[in-house]
Amino acid sequence: MIMKAFEAVLAPNNDLSGVRGLLTSLPEADATAEAAAAARNGELTKPPGALGRLEDVAVWLAGWQGTPSPAVTAPAIAVFAGNHAVTQRGVSPYPSDVTAQMVANFAAGGAAINQICQAGGIRLSVHPMDLDHPAGDIAAGAAMTEDECARHFADGMAAVPPECDLFAAGEMGIGNTTAAAAIYAALYGGDAARFVGRGTGVDDAGLARKVSVVKDALAHHAGNLGDPIEVLRRLGGREIAAIAGAILAARLRRVPVVLDGYVVTAAAAILHAANPAAIDHCVAGHCSAEGAHGEVLERLGLKPLISLGLRLGEGTGAALAMSMVKAAAACQSGMATFSSAGVANK
Amino acid sequence: MIMKAFEAVLAPNNDLSGVRGLLTSLPEADATAEAAAAARNGELTKPPGALGRLEDVAVWLAGWQGTPSPAVTAPAIAVFAGNHAVTQRGVSPYPSDVTAQMVANFAAGGAAINQICQAGGIRLSVHPMDLDHPAGDIAAGAAMTEDECARHFADGMAAVPPECDLFAAGEMGIGNTTAAAAIYAALYGGDAARFVGRGTGVDDAGLARKVSVVKDALAHHAGNLGDPIEVLRRLGGREIAAIAGAILAARLRRVPVVLDGYVVTAAAAILHAANPAAIDHCVAGHCSAEGAHGEVLERLGLKPLISLGLRLGEGTGAALAMSMVKAAAACQSGMATFSSAGVANK
Repeated sequence: MIMKAFEAVLAPNNDLSGVRGLLTSLPEADATAEAAAAARNGELTKPPGALGRLEDVAVWLAGWQGTPSPAVTAPAIAVFAGNHAVTQRGVSPYPSDVTAQMVANFAAGGAAINQICQAGGIRLSVHPMDLDHPAGDIAAGAAMTEDECARHFADGMAAVPPECDLFAAGEMGIGNTTAAAAIYAALYGGDAARFVGRGTGVDDAGLARKVSVVKDALAHHAGNLGDPIEVLRRLGGREIAAIAGAILAARLRRVPVVLDGYVVTAAAAILHAANPAAIDHCVAGHCSAEGAHGEVLERLGLKPLISLGLRLGEGTGAALAMSMVKAAAACQSGMATFSSAGVANK
Repeated sequence: MIMKAFEAVLAPNNDLSGVRGLLTSLPEADATAEAAAAARNGELTKPPGALGRLEDVAVWLAGWQGTPSPAVTAPAIAVFAGNHAVTQRGVSPYPSDVTAQMVANFAAGGAAINQICQAGGIRLSVHPMDLDHPAGDIAAGAAMTEDECARHFADGMAAVPPECDLFAAGEMGIGNTTAAAAIYAALYGGDAARFVGRGTGVDDAGLARKVSVVKDALAHHAGNLGDPIEVLRRLGGREIAAIAGAILAARLRRVPVVLDGYVVTAAAAILHAANPAAIDHCVAGHCSAEGAHGEVLERLGLKPLISLGLRLGEGTGAALAMSMVKAAAACQSGMATFSSAGVANK
């Protein structure tokens, strides 16, 4: 199925028709496994509902993994990095060079995501997307050609490890919160300013420049933002296209996904706008302090597992939340039942 | 220091003067280590503040562990179990036998706390407190004699593993959310009903009985609830006394503590009422769905790390939160700095 999907995405037309096609026919969760998991949950040695959201997560996992006894033994995070020409407009206090420098830091094990993955037993891979060629300046043109967008989408699809049982995408890219804000503003409308956050820490003047750039981008692409995949191509970036591809590849394999913060959620929002069921296999890992992440998650019908004021990206929020998902699976699959443990029920 | 503290608690007077004495002279966090940790945090390869609350947790850990590079490599949870004669008044839908049955379930590895500890690499120990002799019916007398209360306090002190670098107490005890509600009502006043929750799942009639029992207990002990340690002895229970002892023993060794839910926090509230600085080494693991846990945490000046609607006890909320604390330590101590990684700073 995945091979066929690759072929479709990298179709001879060099356009995005393959991506659009994939989104129209997606595998569903296994309702039988879900029902069996919910029934077993009611027999475990705890009062009904006492594990709160862990119980919902366990049943959701069961549906996507297709078993009443889900497991998280091989969680994986793929971090996608990309550069953005829009940085020349002063939307970040850090230079674009930092993207490649942070990729080197990931490789050397020195970043936050390395520590959190190591602490949580999560496999980490890093995927730089043509860093020497930044995505086009969205305020003056498209971020990517159709061919580039399809190629990075396929890169993302290929980055989901075949054996993983829980997946998250992370990102690194100086300038990419500006792209995310532009995507949200295009998808949801209203005042663009409310989707613009401080990213890696712009000052007030920088924030005003970011708002202005997002408005310029929306004006430049006005009339061409009706199709979500076109929004991705015009306003996104190489790493954002790859994240969308990775989330979709996980779906094709029915691997559950934990979403990270503002930029990763922008890729998910594109898929959701194209097909509202496309992110049913995703749970929100955390609510980021960046921009209007809380509002965006609500629009997507997602409730974050944790909310600790993170705004780093890299997949850090998702990596932290994976511990919760792992615990949910462990309780669902490892706990004794009232009858097996000889505990009196009420 | 711990041996001396034990001797003080188990003093020849058979009273609680030793416990009271310990609370007047407690070791403080290492301000130098805290300052060094905060300085190092500012040099790590991330924008300032981008790890949100993990950064505060890392600095707090550094202070209590006395090093700018804190570590969580040996986290431990001790679960204390106790029975309560007040159950004869119909405050729980489960019979008291369930306490011992769940202790057996803990020993066999079948409970939720076993799965979460295993998933998180947390050492778990279980400490039944004289289960054949329930604490006295608080609506008609004291839960414990002075001697019993001091003995269980010392039991709790002895249960903190010497080598652990992060500690949490958990609990199991049919009837103990009634005791916790009575403690909060005694400490904080006002309408007792607002501290009474559904515990393991009482129906409306059971909830009304719980409220009535808490009011009866406050009336019975009226005039004798001015001293927090006396509140513990009269309204608490064997496992609650042990939890208070364990939290205090951790403090004497400067081991940081993650608080669990409603019952564990009641023990912490006793210590806090006796000396507001007594729980400075504690972080709130989670906000429970039981009773007025959110309000109680606010009164204690604590902000929960996670909030997933759990209301199981056993230490489950603390065990989940330990993953966050472990990640905070890992980032603080394992991340590269801008200069060591060759990453350009803003």
